[in-house]
Amino acid sequence: MANKQMKITVVGAGTIGLSFAALHLTKNTDCTVTIFDTRQDLQQYVQQTLPGYLVDVDHDACMRRLSFSSKLEDAVKDAAIIQEQGPENPAFKIDIWPQIERHAPKDALLWSSTSGIPASQQSRDMQDKSRLVIVHPFNPPHIMPVLEVVPSPETSQVVVDRTMEYWRKHDRSPVVLQKECTGFVANRLAFALYREACSLVTQGVVSVEDLDEIVQTSMGPRWTVAGPFKSYHAGGGEGGLKSFMDKIGGTVQGCWDASEEDIRKGNISVGGGWEAHICRQTDAAYGVVDTADRDTKTRKVLEAVKN
Amino acid sequence: MANKQMKITVVGAGTIGLSFAALHLTKNTDCTVTIFDTRQDLQQYVQQTLPGYLVDVDHDACMRRLSFSSKLEDAVKDAAIIQEQGPENPAFKIDIWPQIERHAPKDALLWSSTSGIPASQQSRDMQDKSRLVIVHPFNPPHIMPVLEVVPSPETSQVVVDRTMEYWRKHDRSPVVLQKECTGFVANRLAFALYREACSLVTQGVVSVEDLDEIVQTSMGPRWTVAGPFKSYHAGGGEGGLKSFMDKIGGTVQGCWDASEEDIRKGNISVGGGWEAHICRQTDAAYGVVDTADRDTKTRKVLEAVKN
Repeated sequence: MANKQMKITVVGAGTIGLSFAALHLTKNTDCTVTIFDTRQDLQQYVQQTLPGYLVDVDHDACMRRLSFSSKLEDAVKDAAIIQEQGPENPAFKIDIWPQIERHAPKDALLWSSTSGIPASQQSRDMQDKSRLVIVHPFNPPHIMPVLEVVPSPETSQVVVDRTMEYWRKHDRSPVVLQKECTGFVANRLAFALYREACSLVTQGVVSVEDLDEIVQTSMGPRWTVAGPFKSYHAGGGEGGLKSFMDKIGGTVQGCWDASEEDIRKGNISVGGGWEAHICRQTDAAYGVVDTADRDTKTRKVLEAVKN
Repeated sequence: MANKQMKITVVGAGTIGLSFAALHLTKNTDCTVTIFDTRQDLQQYVQQTLPGYLVDVDHDACMRRLSFSSKLEDAVKDAAIIQEQGPENPAFKIDIWPQIERHAPKDALLWSSTSGIPASQQSRDMQDKSRLVIVHPFNPPHIMPVLEVVPSPETSQVVVDRTMEYWRKHDRSPVVLQKECTGFVANRLAFALYREACSLVTQGVVSVEDLDEIVQTSMGPRWTVAGPFKSYHAGGGEGGLKSFMDKIGGTVQGCWDASEEDIRKGNISVGGGWEAHICRQTDAAYGVVDTADRDTKTRKVLEAVKN
């Protein structure tokens, strides 16, 4: 009975907030969701926007388990989970957690969806810093399975365990990072490849569209099935990753060296002057991207790779 | 009638050679394939190994269109396409092309599957350097759609066009690079992410297995559907990639800076001492990878994303 109608409070009705609200409503059929936001037209806005995130489920049944609040105290009262995705601004987050802490049940899980402000910073003014943990999604979270769970050194193991348990139970793939780091792992990896992509286009080796095509027909599908370590471990045959590095380590280092040189040559840093060319090419290639089509295809890919 | 029974010669019966042989036999039902290799047990070896690459087709019908040769002159005679995947050794390739050129029909397409030796180097001693072009696969080519077509400055446009036409017709996704570069594009991109992955594991942020899991549940499926430029262009909403960079450029640069610092700190170069730890972790996590299962799942993913 305890889990019947568990209340989940979503703080912030931006795209991440609504996507998480949709995720809870569709995957956790025992919950109610309360959305807190100070925008004037909150209820009207959510009722218009949220159904777009609800796929293959009874919209009305989901919407009946939804409520709204513009008062934080009411919003977090009696909640089992409070999930924050307000502005990406340390001051906002440092300020809101002590307020939430004051009014939320003692055992409520406190999660932030930040893409870069670590829990150790956000929890600065909390009475009990052990309660807060980052749950960083890959956009949009109602589609993408990964969640990076990033504790601060003070986050309690119980909080991490309960967070992992909730998401495993509700069809996500949570992964705990062993320590806080700039940008967490998914963005660090993606941006490393993105920098190389910007560099190769800037050097005139390949067009924006052809580079995307290469990724879509090689690394994309490969890494959906087996991540980079597993892939190269397989590539090494019976000797595994060590054999792979022994055999093609020279080629790998050659690429890394060329990469460093080209990044320097092209001045591939933010604001480095190369961006205008790439933005123009990307705009010409794609115009406005149909994200509904992207999401439908992504669902199919994820379905295909399930056991 | 001209295309009936076009002869394709595969030079080198390693894994890439057999995978390409299988690709031609299954996708181009009008061709015969001749495999050239100097190994003593060539015929027996191929007849045992090749059926593993032939999926969802009539094995016997494919094998009937296959022949063998240990004499290069005979192997390339009357061929419409000669595809080389011998040792990754410039001397071998520089030496073999003039021999092939001497005995092959004047209009035969000459392709090398090298992962790093550019056509401008391989063609050094050819009479007509305009004939050679790189067709670099992502392993294994009978499964992965991408082919990087890399002309030298002397490769003729007709050769590039005919190469593109052949592969488009036979269910692959060929992409032409605009100039030769170290490692071509797919490996440059993949190795950039791999370096960051090695760095993050070395820093103790995440385990090998968890990093793979993150990639498999975020970038993998996303980039199967939309490459990095298209993805971030969508992420910027109506303002596209420019808007994305304006909004989160600071975070991107923060990640790039942290990446450079961590790579320096961890000495993430080949032979840098960090490899033993990662190889051990990878070995413990995966043992010997079941590539048949990987390939089956990859086929499903590729099927899912087709229109």
